Amino acid sequence: MSDADRAPHTLANGKPASDKPAPGKLANGKSWIDFQTEPERYRHWKLSIDGDIATLAMDVDEKAGLFEGYDLKLNSYDLGVDIELADAIERLRFEHPQVRALVLRSAKPRVFSAGANIRMLAGASHAHKVNFCKFTNETRNGIEDLSANSGIKSICAINGTAAGGGYELALATDYIMLVDDGSAAVSLPELPLLAVLPGTGGLTRVSDKRKVRRDLADVFCTTEEGVKGKRAVEWRLVDAVAPGSKFEETIAARAKEFAAKSPRRAAAKGITLAPLTRTLGTDSVDYSSLSVEFQRTDRIATLTLRGPTAPPPASADAMVTLGANFWPLKLARELDDAILHIRINELDTAALVFKSSGDPAQVLAYDAFLSANKNHWLAREIRHLWKRVLKRVDLTSRSLVTLIEPGSCFAGTLAELPLASDRSYILVGRRDGDNRPPACLVLADVNFGAYPMSNGLTRLACRFLATPDDVEAAKAERGKMLDAEEAHRLGLVTFALDDIDWDDEVRVFLEERSSFSPDGLTGLEANLRFAGPETMESKIFARLTAWQNWIFQRPNAIGEDGALKRYGTGQKPVFDTKRV
Amino acid sequence: MSDADRAPHTLANGKPASDKPAPGKLANGKSWIDFQTEPERYRHWKLSIDGDIATLAMDVDEKAGLFEGYDLKLNSYDLGVDIELADAIERLRFEHPQVRALVLRSAKPRVFSAGANIRMLAGASHAHKVNFCKFTNETRNGIEDLSANSGIKSICAINGTAAGGGYELALATDYIMLVDDGSAAVSLPELPLLAVLPGTGGLTRVSDKRKVRRDLADVFCTTEEGVKGKRAVEWRLVDAVAPGSKFEETIAARAKEFAAKSPRRAAAKGITLAPLTRTLGTDSVDYSSLSVEFQRTDRIATLTLRGPTAPPPASADAMVTLGANFWPLKLARELDDAILHIRINELDTAALVFKSSGDPAQVLAYDAFLSANKNHWLAREIRHLWKRVLKRVDLTSRSLVTLIEPGSCFAGTLAELPLASDRSYILVGRRDGDNRPPACLVLADVNFGAYPMSNGLTRLACRFLATPDDVEAAKAERGKMLDAEEAHRLGLVTFALDDIDWDDEVRVFLEERSSFSPDGLTGLEANLRFAGPETMESKIFARLTAWQNWIFQRPNAIGEDGALKRYGTGQKPVFDTKRV
Repeated sequence: MSDADRAPHTLANGKPASDKPAPGKLANGKSWIDFQTEPERYRHWKLSIDGDIATLAMDVDEKAGLFEGYDLKLNSYDLGVDIELADAIERLRFEHPQVRALVLRSAKPRVFSAGANIRMLAGASHAHKVNFCKFTNETRNGIEDLSANSGIKSICAINGTAAGGGYELALATDYIMLVDDGSAAVSLPELPLLAVLPGTGGLTRVSDKRKVRRDLADVFCTTEEGVKGKRAVEWRLVDAVAPGSKFEETIAARAKEFAAKSPRRAAAKGITLAPLTRTLGTDSVDYSSLSVEFQRTDRIATLTLRGPTAPPPASADAMVTLGANFWPLKLARELDDAILHIRINELDTAALVFKSSGDPAQVLAYDAFLSANKNHWLAREIRHLWKRVLKRVDLTSRSLVTLIEPGSCFAGTLAELPLASDRSYILVGRRDGDNRPPACLVLADVNFGAYPMSNGLTRLACRFLATPDDVEAAKAERGKMLDAEEAHRLGLVTFALDDIDWDDEVRVFLEERSSFSPDGLTGLEANLRFAGPETMESKIFARLTAWQNWIFQRPNAIGEDGALKRYGTGQKPVFDTKRV
Repeated sequence: MSDADRAPHTLANGKPASDKPAPGKLANGKSWIDFQTEPERYRHWKLSIDGDIATLAMDVDEKAGLFEGYDLKLNSYDLGVDIELADAIERLRFEHPQVRALVLRSAKPRVFSAGANIRMLAGASHAHKVNFCKFTNETRNGIEDLSANSGIKSICAINGTAAGGGYELALATDYIMLVDDGSAAVSLPELPLLAVLPGTGGLTRVSDKRKVRRDLADVFCTTEEGVKGKRAVEWRLVDAVAPGSKFEETIAARAKEFAAKSPRRAAAKGITLAPLTRTLGTDSVDYSSLSVEFQRTDRIATLTLRGPTAPPPASADAMVTLGANFWPLKLARELDDAILHIRINELDTAALVFKSSGDPAQVLAYDAFLSANKNHWLAREIRHLWKRVLKRVDLTSRSLVTLIEPGSCFAGTLAELPLASDRSYILVGRRDGDNRPPACLVLADVNFGAYPMSNGLTRLACRFLATPDDVEAAKAERGKMLDAEEAHRLGLVTFALDDIDWDDEVRVFLEERSSFSPDGLTGLEANLRFAGPETMESKIFARLTAWQNWIFQRPNAIGEDGALKRYGTGQKPVFDTKRV
């Protein structure tokens, strides 16, 4: 994807699409933010592997910020640093199946990480701040998923300052080790320093994962310098401290221990996550199994997913040989990239319209293949990748709609898209002159457990919260090509429309959606999509994120005299003292 | 409390303390908002009682708005209307123990309620909007508590339009009946009409209480005109429809049925909730068992709770005779009023400092008395009132700190205040020349179940989420006067300080707290106070409220071209189309 052929409506000409010159211009003449990278191109992380232990060392290149106008000192980070981290975590899963433990550490002396770069935040548009926090949250949830589902337990070795986002990164690991040298400390200084919240799950992980006593958490989160040594252990902020002289050997011992206990079965070798096939047009992004089209005047992005063109491979080994070309893996990676691209580079998009084309039976065959090989490391990783991508869809602040039309293949895994949508429409019968098979929806085993939402429920269980029997009724129909009427009767789609009504109804809906307040819709959808229980993960995206976004709008943080703006100027912020 | 002696720092001189002339001036020359009222003074509701069935009829006096500048047409409401509703609900509990079912309805033809008054909202300061939503949410939670714990099931009889907050009020009842006349409808038109969310729990109750399917909820919440008739039942938005000709008899039959099933045991007669004894000084509010002092330069309000001056009465009948003068009831009502007063009239207050004076043994004696009479209707109501007041404390956006000093009585019920605080300090030993008993904390049965937080946990269970054994260890100490060291060792207080350090430490803490961003603290405390599970109630105050507050800050809602500002002008709002 070259910058030259990039359409001028988003970040072209160095002019960010966001409300303000958000953290200045993108560096190096870039006009849009790319979520794709690979280890050879990393500027900020060093991934090394020694037997079954991987080490990810943070070594931020302070001159390689994503935007102009700030230096990434002291291992502080911006979105570009986190894109590399997310990439590295993904590669551990797919490229290094022999890895059974991960050590996250710093390659710089006496500093682990100073957290999100403050100058970057101070200059960022609201939209960039929100998207930055969302992506970094997803990356940290991914580290926890790595532990829970890929059997790679993680250790964070803190050799010095771990402040704000630095400590929040540590919180995402399973075990936090802090050097006990009289100065190294963990801290969440956001509130006293910047008048904002730790935005990457810090508060929720302090209260709900590490279960720090609330009054101690209050002291901790209001103490700029943080907590060090034994007290950090007593307060449950870290798991262990070790003197500098024993730090390395303790890390090594602990990593060995974690690797030994890992349930991950050794696999001979991984696959290569080859760069995505991606072509950017003025109003489109084309991948091998996915096309995105932008109807800019209507503020719609249509994502058309293409089903497999060949039956699944004959064996798990053949799947490994296909590697990144294996259809379910390829499509998941492409969908993930498209969602991320739209979120941050296409802010003006009001609605994502999901369509598909292909043979539902083929999609089901792939699901069946993955189920049959569910104990194979690669099949398992692909399932969990889909789970994470679908969660990313749930958390995308755009109206989501699925149009199920003749010739589409919303079956099994792909049936999660209508279920993840705010609304779905299915066409009854055929259109004149269209000889493709009528629209259908097909459920499979995979819709009943493999893809939990962030609240821990399947999309069907969440949908039928009032009527669990309807989940059972749907389950009984697994494998059947449910036509429009059946899908509607089972409550699986919102509207079943015939050809006469279809165009008008869909058009009116999309026009209406574009006419509503974008902010109002974000709040509405964030509430209606997540009925039922909450988990730590869902709390992060609800309670914490929503409050943080509020604070990110308040003059006390972002006003000319606010703390974010005045940080580093030597001038104290001036606050409106009213408590709201 | 007369207006004449009201200090000029809040709403005096018709100048609201909030950031903007928030919905104009208070009407009738008032200078502050009073949460106290009584049925004789109601302007908007008619409470009538017929045997065991109470009817609360909404009949809003459109000329009796709390502020100037708008008419409360079509049973639309402002905070003043809701203060009366909250009062009426409270009186059902205490003054009318014979009531076993409640019918909520409108006294106006063809309209139930048009919801929160839009002109009021459009003119309101951010602080007023936030506090208005918080209070109305608490009132609706109170209606649900009435059903769950006082045995008064409620029916909402909707005889016409129930829009926005009107339908949200219905959602708080147990059973919604809608007249089927071809026009009466329920609706949540906030998003399409005003670009904000239904702010009184509507979205959460639609998704989590009525468990409306998410796509139908999406349609419902984006359809201005709402849903009527059979479809409203099918979509689970209401429980039943009845034609106009059968509406009255169906309501009556249903109310009888509910009353017959109520577990509330008939009691001869209730008590009178006499007006509170309350004196307002320039920098103080004095009640009979509670004093509030404002140190305005330090932005601190000190609330000193006074223990009982006499032992508990000899019998439950004697408690009934004491009525509103019974110490636990009196103090709960006073604390509730003080908290509400500070929240809305004293926005500049950064921290609430809880102190107490009295004999801990006497406090425990009252707790024991209530426990011994726990099946008596009045004792039960008092316990639940304390539960609600303590939840109100949890949800107060001020830093909460308890100072446990010699002569204090933080025992049993009052020990919930240090547990509800962000931090607590206890003085070790005595002060020179002070012969009052040293500071102590005393736990009782009541701290282990009677007062759940909105997340369903006791404050101790929430505090010791990581170490449930510590709850048991604390339980073993029930009834003991825990001195500073013991209370600290058990993890029940944050800091135990001796006389030498006390003044400085407390001063530095309070100064620091006042120096932080008020918004940042609101977000921080809202996250750290509620570790653990979420309930529908806690979701309302977290996910929904936080998103709504964000939207209430966004130009798309409140800007000059925003939807709230342009409503009713004939001009369409102009939105920034970026989705964030």
